This record gives sequence, structure tokens and C-alpha cells, in this order.
Amino acid sequence: MTERLTLFDTTLRDGQQTQGVQFSTPEKLEIAALLDALGIDYIEGGWPGANPTDSEFFATPPETQAILTAFGMTKRAGRSAANDDVLAGVVNANTPAVCLVGKTHDFHVETALGISLDENVSNIRDSFAHLVSLGRETFFDAEHFFDGYKSNPAYALECLHAAYGEGATVVLCDTNGGTLPAEISATVAAVIDSGIDGARLGIHTHNDTGTAVAGTLAAVDAGARHIQGTLNGLGERCGNANLTSIIPTLLLKEPYRSRYTTGVNEENLPQLIVASRKLDDILNRVPNKHAPYIGASAFAHKAGLHASAILKDPTTYEHIDPGSVGNSRIIPMSNQAGQSNLRKRLSEMGLKDFDTSALPRILEVIKQREDEGYSYDTAQASFELLARRELGLLPNFFEVKRYKVTVERRKNKYDKMISLSEAVVVVKVGKDKMLSVSESLDETGSDRGPVNALAKALAKDLGPYSAMIEDMRLVDFKVRITQGGTEAVTRVIIDSADSRGNRWSTVGVSPNIVDASFEALLDAINWKLIREGAHVA
Amino acid sequence: MTERLTLFDTTLRDGQQTQGVQFSTPEKLEIAALLDALGIDYIEGGWPGANPTDSEFFATPPETQAILTAFGMTKRAGRSAANDDVLAGVVNANTPAVCLVGKTHDFHVETALGISLDENVSNIRDSFAHLVSLGRETFFDAEHFFDGYKSNPAYALECLHAAYGEGATVVLCDTNGGTLPAEISATVAAVIDSGIDGARLGIHTHNDTGTAVAGTLAAVDAGARHIQGTLNGLGERCGNANLTSIIPTLLLKEPYRSRYTTGVNEENLPQLIVASRKLDDILNRVPNKHAPYIGASAFAHKAGLHASAILKDPTTYEHIDPGSVGNSRIIPMSNQAGQSNLRKRLSEMGLKDFDTSALPRILEVIKQREDEGYSYDTAQASFELLARRELGLLPNFFEVKRYKVTVERRKNKYDKMISLSEAVVVVKVGKDKMLSVSESLDETGSDRGPVNALAKALAKDLGPYSAMIEDMRLVDFKVRITQGGTEAVTRVIIDSADSRGNRWSTVGVSPNIVDASFEALLDAINWKLIREGAHVA
Repeated sequence: MTERLTLFDTTLRDGQQTQGVQFSTPEKLEIAALLDALGIDYIEGGWPGANPTDSEFFATPPETQAILTAFGMTKRAGRSAANDDVLAGVVNANTPAVCLVGKTHDFHVETALGISLDENVSNIRDSFAHLVSLGRETFFDAEHFFDGYKSNPAYALECLHAAYGEGATVVLCDTNGGTLPAEISATVAAVIDSGIDGARLGIHTHNDTGTAVAGTLAAVDAGARHIQGTLNGLGERCGNANLTSIIPTLLLKEPYRSRYTTGVNEENLPQLIVASRKLDDILNRVPNKHAPYIGASAFAHKAGLHASAILKDPTTYEHIDPGSVGNSRIIPMSNQAGQSNLRKRLSEMGLKDFDTSALPRILEVIKQREDEGYSYDTAQASFELLARRELGLLPNFFEVKRYKVTVERRKNKYDKMISLSEAVVVVKVGKDKMLSVSESLDETGSDRGPVNALAKALAKDLGPYSAMIEDMRLVDFKVRITQGGTEAVTRVIIDSADSRGNRWSTVGVSPNIVDASFEALLDAINWKLIREGAHVA
Repeated sequence: MTERLTLFDTTLRDGQQTQGVQFSTPEKLEIAALLDALGIDYIEGGWPGANPTDSEFFATPPETQAILTAFGMTKRAGRSAANDDVLAGVVNANTPAVCLVGKTHDFHVETALGISLDENVSNIRDSFAHLVSLGRETFFDAEHFFDGYKSNPAYALECLHAAYGEGATVVLCDTNGGTLPAEISATVAAVIDSGIDGARLGIHTHNDTGTAVAGTLAAVDAGARHIQGTLNGLGERCGNANLTSIIPTLLLKEPYRSRYTTGVNEENLPQLIVASRKLDDILNRVPNKHAPYIGASAFAHKAGLHASAILKDPTTYEHIDPGSVGNSRIIPMSNQAGQSNLRKRLSEMGLKDFDTSALPRILEVIKQREDEGYSYDTAQASFELLARRELGLLPNFFEVKRYKVTVERRKNKYDKMISLSEAVVVVKVGKDKMLSVSESLDETGSDRGPVNALAKALAKDLGPYSAMIEDMRLVDFKVRITQGGTEAVTRVIIDSADSRGNRWSTVGVSPNIVDASFEALLDAINWKLIREGAHVA
């Protein structure tokens, strides 16, 4: 018999406490959809009433299989639960589940809240009684529980039971992140001994000692069955327990694999990389190559001894099959395995009958371009164009002879500062030279900048191709300074989409951001023309 | 009575297996000096004979208090230890200590080495007998020990004792990184039960499940007294156990603090940040802000509730004193922030006697700006300017009347595509109108783009201020598309630095990337002028 573990994601709430992270409402909705596709049980969306973004998210909640959860805090002293306006803000979000944080550490009750220990217990009890009377599923985030238990075990347990007695699942939070796994294990066991059922006992760790994942596993080993964490370990300070490490361990490694089931099943496990990378995209962060299970280097075998053994039997240096998490093995490009990887990638692009003698040259060009600052991890469309070029399979649809773009900022006749971008592009299509000019004003009259002006001018007259690229649109634009050889260069990645549902990424690199953008733009158009089956004019 | 734990750093050997990492000999010497200053007991410098860099390092070894260790592998079958040329290469490095890796997993002996189980045991025994006869201190890196012990416990222990019997300290290596802490703990206990003294028993973990640090602590809990790891957790695949997390835990946290001593003492602990950042500098990596103990965000308190409690008593939300590891507390701004957070920030900026009635208005402006796409978590300098503006403490040093920037790409006379950016800026300083123009070519003749051209034109003539901003330089530039109200906007964050060692970040937001950059640039200059004590012209 296996037991069910429940997974509770707090990327949208505790994850938003990460320094430098500020989700917009559409981003929150996008992340919620990723979590839902993965099979997470509970999605904590934020604190309704605490800020406009969170309120907006709950005003137009996503439709998910996962149970949407609103976060808040236990009612304050001196008013009833029904009359606490902060709690009312949370209740009014009308989510099926509510998670309230409250104090369990005597020192915090007296120092931070400045109320009596008994008042705090009443606040907890009354808050949960109120929520349960409204028919909500409830969670109690017992703040600083481990420190509280160390300081005053009887009081910490009393707080826990106040919520538990009303029907809440109680979650032991290591809020400071300072508790090591051995102590987590002992404390969880003591909590269960006090009469709390593991099925309604959760763990919430932080990574301040680098042991958040292990602390979570230690709690499960000791009997807790509810797990809180975030994608990519986002979270205040050093982050929360990283679900992208915990979930594969629970599904793939013993003793967890035999003992437990979760809402995420093995079939969905490859979605973890998708969700992780998408989150990094949203945050414009470089994915951590060395992340357990999902990092690009997680199965990269650099040591010569390892690489040669791997070729004999992959289990020699891999604790799991990389494919089980949607990841893949990397063995330095120079050897046999590099070529077979490349062949696989090309056939995935629909390139099947090609001259295999070109493979070593393609690997060489990739290496050289990566040295210059290019990156083909996400820019698959640019990678395809590179390979096609080397294979002699890239038609020369058109040639850009020159361009010029101007951005001007000055006062308009109403004495208001306005800006205007204008681009001129000269293109040769077959024997025809086309000269196009475009501004970058959108329908609201606001200036979208030089890259937009260039894109519009370029698309304006591409002769026979214009109709084919009409439905293209730029959906994302990421810029980063990176090292290209010895100098800093700008790398631009452009995501494009069309009405057929294609979405593709291209890359450009230059010290000049406009040049880099233009290069990525040209790749985007060329890829689209190939997909449309364009012929050279 | 405390026991001594020994620390063994393998950054220069296993750390070099990190994808993308290749140290030069001078870099290895620099890192060795950092490790030595910290008080590490053993520095594993590499594998003499395996590659030119490692051989060169041992040919001119650093002078260290730490014991320099050469890495190699046990002798191969069919020759004596004295006649194995690979082992001879290691011996000839003449280091006081030698660490040899060898097999302990029956499957590997037969699959990867293709020799008999007995031959492997002899190879281990003979190799260590040889090294000990030469007077070397020895370590046996027992490869795949945990998997080997699971597969064939008697054989794994036999291999271990073959080295131990000759005098080696035996190190249990979780080479695949797949062993979880609970199993490490049980296996270490079994090894001690087999008659191995914990003082000569070591642990070497990898982070493939995100538990390398916890696995190391579990081994210490079970009796191992020797620890191998790397700075910043460098290492093959997901990296090795991270010494920058382990060392502070051993020195500052219970039960380790009371039970053990190490070569690193509390006084030297702040050197850990120095060593970690220096290593990132060498590798041209961005330091991990969220690294336990040493990350820039490790003591950043973003949540409003946390920030207000921290002001009452720092121990409320910090598990250790940030100063003990040479780190410091950060209270960033965000839409979660409360007034107490804000007041603290302002006083840190040196703003003490201000009109506190302005605080709610400042919070309101921050919220509104964040809704428009601004972010003040990292752009602390722009935040300061915003607060000063609201408090009436921001001098109007100069006014930009208009600018115009052009980027042109075309063929030069050698028929090569080149680009050129040019900017014209019109500024009013006091009663004077200044008109400046600048190109963006750098010393190598390459075009750095429109933002660079604008920055140069702006700095060119700011009248009395020009001298004050002469030492400013742009050190980083980050761009992302974000949501501003209902439309997508570009957010630019610029990091600037000057010769006084100041480093500051500013933010600009606009649908037009050039406008957004220009706004961040203006903030950067204004912040610098305030720091220089500029007066309005």
C-alpha cells in the first residue's frame, strides 16, 4: 500500500518574496497553468488585499484542477475573525482553500505581536473556526515552529492544536531557515506524538543552510505527508525548498518511489523542466545549469574516465535515467556521442537526408559561435538555420543591404516629452531593391522603439514573402550582456509566434543592441519562410 | 571535549570537472592562496601528469600552511605499483599527501575495469603500501562506495579495508550523487562498525539530488571526521558538497559548534565570502545571490511583516548574525513593503530628518510605479531618487531638452557590413543650453550601440558636473519585457560603478528601449551627483 503525499506550491506567494522578483498578474496566471499541468495539488496564489497584483489575480482566478489557495494571516487581537478586515480580504477572494500564517513561538508573540500568549492562541482558534464555518479547506502555516518548539514546546504545540482542532492541516514552517534536517526529523516525530495525524501535517523549509530539500525529506521520513515548496527554489533570502529537486526524488528514488504517490506522475515529470525554464524566462534569469535533475549540466560527463564508462553502460555514472525527467546526457561535443546527439536533433527538425560528413563542421561552428556569446539552448530556430546553412539547405530568400533607425525624444506642441522611432530598411529580393520606411507608433500613439520600427519596415515590403510573414508577431524579447571572446557583447533572444500556433526563438549577438536585435529578427523571418515553404524569388 | 574535523578542498580537481570550467595555472595558485588564508587543512591541486595545467601547478607548487595533495588513481592491473607510469606521475609531484581514487563497486570493477574482484583489491593494497613506504600521507577516494555497498557490502568493505590497513584515510564517495542523507548515515555507521575509526573516515558527496550538504552533515553525525568539498559547490554535473555552506554550519550551528573544531576559525569565517566572490570573478560568473550564508540576498528581508519584526529584534528572522560570515542585512523595497521597512531604508541612505508624513505618499508612488513596470528591489539608487523627489530633497541639477540617436548599418568601402551609432543631446544646465554629439566607437573601432552613444554625448558637456561624473562607468545592463499596466513595456536596469568603489543600480521603463535606457542613465548620473555633493548650477 502506498500513501499519498500532497504537494503545495507557493511560488506565487513565498516565491514572490525573492529579492528582484515581482510577478505581474498575467505572469502569475501563466505560472499557475504550468503548475497545474504538472499535477501540483495546491497553488497558493498570493495574499488578496495585500497588493494590487495579488488582488487582481484572485479577481480573475485561473481555472485549474489544482486547488487554488489564498494566503493571509490569523486575525489580529481586539476584533472578531468576522470583523478583521485583513482576514476579510482573504475570505473574499472566495478560494476553496485558505492558508493562514500565525505565530507559535512565544518570543515572537511577545516581541513582534506584543500580545499575550493566550490571546494568540485564541486568534488562531477563532480564525480557523471562522474559515471552516465558511466551508473552506484550511492550512495553518505555523511560523517559526521549530524555534518555537525549542523555546517552549508546550506552547508551540498548543498553538498547533488550536488550528488542528478546528480542522486545519498544520504546516511546520522553518521560517528562519536555520533548522537542520536531524532536528526537523525529531520535531516532526514529537508533533505526531502529540496527537497530530501525519496526513494533516505539513513541512515548509527554507534553504538558509543549504539543506531545505533534505529537511523536507527528513520531515516525510518522520511522518509528515504535506509538502510546501517553490519552483526553482524561489523564496525569501536563500529561497524555499525546491520542488524541482524534491518531486523527482519522491517519484524516482527509494524509499519514496515504493512508499508514496503524488499528484505528479512519472508521465508528467518532464513538464518539470518546461515549468522551470519558463519561470526563468519570465524572470529573465539564466537557468541554473547545475540544478539537480533538471539543469542542463545535470547529466554532463566531463571527466574522461566517466565519459568512457558511460558509453559502456550509462548506469555507471548516472543515478537515474536523464530521460525520466525530460533531461538528456551531455558528453563533450568532440566525441562520437556529440555527433549522435546532433544527428538526433537534426532529425527532430525534419532534416533526415543530409550529408553526415558535415556533422563535425557543424559542431565546430556551434562551439565557435558559443565562444562569441551565442547560445542555442533556447534559440532552437537559430540553431536550425545554422545547421541548414552548413548543410547547404538554407535558401537565400532576401538580402538586407542597409538600414538606418532613429530615435528622437523631444517636446511636442503641448510641451510634453514624446519619443518617435523611425526606420529605413533597404532589401534586395531577387533582382528587386526595396526601400521601406516605418515609424513605431502603436494604435494608442505610443512609441514602441527602434526594434519595432525595424521589424515593421522590414516586413513592409519583402515582395512575394510579405504575405507569408503577415501573421508573425514578436512575443518576447530578452537582452543580456554576456562575454563574447574578450569583450562584453549584447545577446538578444526574440520569441516569435504566428497564427498557426508556432512559437520559435532566435538569437543575435553584437556589441550594439540594435544590431543584435536585427540579427535575431532576420533569423525569425527566415525560419518562418522555411516553415511556409517559401521558394527563392 | 571537542573533536577535530578535517576539511579537504577539491575545487582545483573535482571542481575543474564543472562544465565550462578550465583553470589556468596562475588561477589555481590564486585559489590555493584563498583556501589557505581560510584555514582549509588539505588542498587537492589536481592530477599531476593528466594534463599540462595540473603538471605545471605541481611543478611550481604554492607555499601553503595547508597540506598540498596530488590526486591520481590506484595502479592498474598487470604491473607493480612502482612500475605504473600513471601512479609515478602522481608520486613525482612530491606532495606531502596523495589521494587515489579506486573502485569498490563490484559492477564497476567488472564492467568498467574488466578485471577480477581480487585483482582490484590487490591494486588498492599495493598502491597504498607503495605510497606509505615513500612516507606520504594517503587518502583513498572509494568511488561509488554507497552503490557498491548496496550491491555487495562485503566486497565494498574489503576494498576499503585494503587501503585502510595500509594506513590510508578512507573517503566514502557518492560518485553518482544519488545517495540520500538517510542512507549515507546508515552506511557510514556500518563502515565504522566494520572496524574503521571515524578519525580516518571521510565523506565526499555530489549534489545530484540537492542534498550534498545534508549528506555531508549526516556522515559527520554518523561518525565520519573528514570532509571533502568545493568552493561554491563546483564539480561535475550538479557539483560537489558546497564548503561555503558546510563551513559556517560547522562553526556557527548546533550541535556542531559545541562538538567540533576545524582549521577554519570564526575569525577567518568572513574570508569565505572573499574566496567565493574571487572564484566567481576568476570564472566570470555572477555570484549566486541566494547562496546560504554568503549570498547577497541571504539576509534580505522583503516581506513587510518580516521587515518590521527585524527592526524590533534581528533574531526574529535571522538564524545567525549576518556579520559573523561577513555578510549584511538588506531590506529591499517592493510592493510588499511597509512603512517601517521604508523608514529603515531612508535612514540607511543618510536621510534622517525628513518629513515622516511623506512616507505613505512614497509607498503609494512606489506601488504605482511598480504597476507601471518599475522594480526597486535591486535598483536602490532609483529608489533613493524617488524618495528624495517626494521629500523635496532632489536638486534639479540639469534638464534634458531633447535627444536624437541614430543607428546605421551598411557596407563600408571594403564591402563589409559595419554599424555606427551617433547621439545628439541637448541639455540645459542653469541658464546654459549645451548641445553635444557623440559616436559610440570603442578603442577597437567597434560600435557599442545607441545607449553607449547617448551616455557619451550626455557626459560630454554637463558644465560644472562633467568633472564629477568622469569616473563613472556602466558595468552591467539588463533588459526585459514586462507588463506595465495593460501594455508590454521594456524595463532596463543599469549597474554603474566609480573609482571610489561605489556600485549602484538604476531603472528605467518605457515601451521604447532607448527611452528606458536613457531614464536609467539619467538616474545613475543624478545619484552620482548627489554622492559627490553637487550643488545646483
